[in-house]
Amino acid sequence: MSLVQEPVEEFLARLASGAATPGGGSAAAIMGAMAAALVSMVCNVTLGKKGMEAVESDMQSIRAESEALRLRLTSMVALDVSAFDALMAAYKLPKATDEDKTRRAAAIQASLTRATEVPLDCARACAAVIALAQRAGELGLKAVISDAGVGVLSAYAALRSAALNVYINAPALADRAAAERYTAEIEALTESAARDHEAVYRLVRARL
Amino acid sequence: MSLVQEPVEEFLARLASGAATPGGGSAAAIMGAMAAALVSMVCNVTLGKKGMEAVESDMQSIRAESEALRLRLTSMVALDVSAFDALMAAYKLPKATDEDKTRRAAAIQASLTRATEVPLDCARACAAVIALAQRAGELGLKAVISDAGVGVLSAYAALRSAALNVYINAPALADRAAAERYTAEIEALTESAARDHEAVYRLVRARL
Repeated sequence: MSLVQEPVEEFLARLASGAATPGGGSAAAIMGAMAAALVSMVCNVTLGKKGMEAVESDMQSIRAESEALRLRLTSMVALDVSAFDALMAAYKLPKATDEDKTRRAAAIQASLTRATEVPLDCARACAAVIALAQRAGELGLKAVISDAGVGVLSAYAALRSAALNVYINAPALADRAAAERYTAEIEALTESAARDHEAVYRLVRARL
Repeated sequence: MSLVQEPVEEFLARLASGAATPGGGSAAAIMGAMAAALVSMVCNVTLGKKGMEAVESDMQSIRAESEALRLRLTSMVALDVSAFDALMAAYKLPKATDEDKTRRAAAIQASLTRATEVPLDCARACAAVIALAQRAGELGLKAVISDAGVGVLSAYAALRSAALNVYINAPALADRAAAERYTAEIEALTESAARDHEAVYRLVRARL
């Protein structure tokens, strides 16, 4: 059974356990998925309400994107676990002979690339959720505006959490150009998200 | 079946739906519970590791608190839903006669108090998780330090999310003294958490 098929309370107990996975990367993916879900909720509650006809097509297009992001972020729970487990397995490969060492180093580098790209992709998805939360917060029904606010806070925490895993893994990459590219992208994403999520939060507070 | 007994992916689909609950308050409780779980994880991974004997009793006491907070925050998913549903039900009570109106107003005020106290209590629990994440981040095994970082980001997002629900409900309270007390407490919690969580994040980044 995959982690996201487990009951919420069992997932939480497993997160709390001493097992190496699931850990912060999976928690980040769940936070991101909850953020996307809350954007969808704002759209679903707004759609069909009297007086909200003018934003119907906006709500539909936002919802199409937030639902795709919800599923993509949900699938990242498993991707995070497999990327981390593969990295741990690579470190445990034999290193007795030169051939062993070469094979082990290549496996570690391939796993590190994956363990950097998965959280980077999580951060990209969270940045997209923040942009959608802004539109939902501007156009959505006032009664559910705070749900757009929780969505943006959750997406930002998820993005910064994913960034921690990029910061851990990128420095160990032998491909320095790739490492710098990953680090530059995550820094740019974090900076815009810091600004954007605070703007959405203020917008939501003002509309409460 | 309670919400936290549902599979994670079904909980996410339900959050995305147009139903009034679960919404942002439940998402905040889950973020807080994930944060507490990650603090427990840091303790569980650290306990029994060679070279970490000196922090064993610290790890045990942090874990006792983080596990209690994890269960308390998990139970807040249901408390949030029932507080919100009770408030919606109170607004729908008949208001034809004066007696109706008096009964309805009393029910609304009682539900508003509950719908303010539940997120306030969620915010208090999240502030406690931030303090524990700090100790876990300082003393825990370096290999899981980023999990303390994700914990603190998640706890802070949960606290600010819960605060939104206090800001929505407190202004409608007839008991102005109580409303001011709730608002002052949530503002104080938010301010310290803003400072404290950033300090823990910097500590974690420095130890990565």
